[in-house]
Amino acid sequence: MKIAAELAVELVSLTHEMADAARETTLLHFRRSGLEAGTKARDHFDPVTVADCEAEMRMRAILARRRPQDAILGEEMGAQIGSSGLTWVLDPIDGTRAFLAGIPTWGVLVAVAGPGMRPLYGVIDQPYIGERFMGGFGTSQMTGPRGTASLAVRAARPLAECIIMTTFPEVGNAAEGAAFHRLARQCRLTRYGADCYAYALLAAGQIDLVVEAGLQAYDIQAPMAVIEAAGGIVTNWTGGPAQGGGRVIAASSAAVHAAALALLAE
Amino acid sequence: MKIAAELAVELVSLTHEMADAARETTLLHFRRSGLEAGTKARDHFDPVTVADCEAEMRMRAILARRRPQDAILGEEMGAQIGSSGLTWVLDPIDGTRAFLAGIPTWGVLVAVAGPGMRPLYGVIDQPYIGERFMGGFGTSQMTGPRGTASLAVRAARPLAECIIMTTFPEVGNAAEGAAFHRLARQCRLTRYGADCYAYALLAAGQIDLVVEAGLQAYDIQAPMAVIEAAGGIVTNWTGGPAQGGGRVIAASSAAVHAAALALLAE
Repeated sequence: MKIAAELAVELVSLTHEMADAARETTLLHFRRSGLEAGTKARDHFDPVTVADCEAEMRMRAILARRRPQDAILGEEMGAQIGSSGLTWVLDPIDGTRAFLAGIPTWGVLVAVAGPGMRPLYGVIDQPYIGERFMGGFGTSQMTGPRGTASLAVRAARPLAECIIMTTFPEVGNAAEGAAFHRLARQCRLTRYGADCYAYALLAAGQIDLVVEAGLQAYDIQAPMAVIEAAGGIVTNWTGGPAQGGGRVIAASSAAVHAAALALLAE
Repeated sequence: MKIAAELAVELVSLTHEMADAARETTLLHFRRSGLEAGTKARDHFDPVTVADCEAEMRMRAILARRRPQDAILGEEMGAQIGSSGLTWVLDPIDGTRAFLAGIPTWGVLVAVAGPGMRPLYGVIDQPYIGERFMGGFGTSQMTGPRGTASLAVRAARPLAECIIMTTFPEVGNAAEGAAFHRLARQCRLTRYGADCYAYALLAAGQIDLVVEAGLQAYDIQAPMAVIEAAGGIVTNWTGGPAQGGGRVIAASSAAVHAAALALLAE
């Protein structure tokens, strides 16, 4: 799908308008008392906050007004069919557990994907810190407490010098956990619990690897756009496409990616 | 030790002057390329950054000029004897691993302790977010992206509704890890990797428990001052004094503290 320049500009502008709305709404609820959390019927605890639903409603309202012809895939309110070939992928609060605990590593994820659900542009926004990481259409940058800066992944280095992150220490099922820890043991440093913020740090050149399992498309679309724009690689654990979620590895370089895939596959 | 009002004001002012200096110095190095990390001869990986040393030097220079009669216990440069009965306890970067990985959950810890090393006043500062949590001498508050707010711990609730944090999933040795996870399994939600930020969140009423092992005095003095000022409880795992470090539990209320101690002791 060839995207005309003016359409790209429109999509970027709309992405930020939606992220701004979600930032405002989620902050109304972050670290406020009386926060109510529901529970989805899933394998493990997954709190859903009022903030999550309200933010997605606001983003969908913007799309309904500005681009009703596009499809939508949202965490809270499911899928909506479109006719343009473009799909908006929304996760108003990635990292609901961090949100509930007051830790500012959760984020608003907004991406727009073309045919084959390849992300074209995406944003990872951390409302409380006031940081936004964005990439696609040949650009990649962040804004935050220090102003604006371009994003670029780290140079390749041996695994023994790499920093690796995942959200949950158990990672996924027993086999997935064993594969992750086989890899992590070869790395210099392992950190847990960073949610989507881990992908932002990889795009910003701070860490080398993020490895997760059991992801949904809306968990990875925006991070994938940002990381690819910053020069990184995002695939599944066998090197195939990751835009649908599942087992995902994000790496700063082809060399680190290859070394990590080999250990995950053993 | 009875602290006169004007001395209390002087100590508070000095604490913030030191935290300001450490904030400035650490931010010069946070997320900058070329960060160099040394390694201490300890049981496990403990990176020491240039930022850590420079920040402690700046804080010690302030003390040398303003209160040379006080003792100092610092993470990087050890202990210095004093004659006033007061001891400054400094950890310029608590959470050096988070610092190295670019995650803003590390913090500057500054506390001043009286006889018996009981903390009188303390500050947990997160320079990148621009948040500071402080408590002692009858006051407790935070400043941050939303301005100034008072700190107060959460109301007591059953363990099944509690949020618990620790820094490393393995916690300490095998027995310590088993005790932690026995407790964590009874809680609603467990989060890892927050370093000193976990104590700040407890003082701010966001979470219910922080349980750690193998702490040093400089890891816990400032958090203890902040949490006690906000109405919480900090002891060792048997309910005794925690100001020296070791196995530490911080709880939002007496009821949560008692329920947690019972499970840690089983």
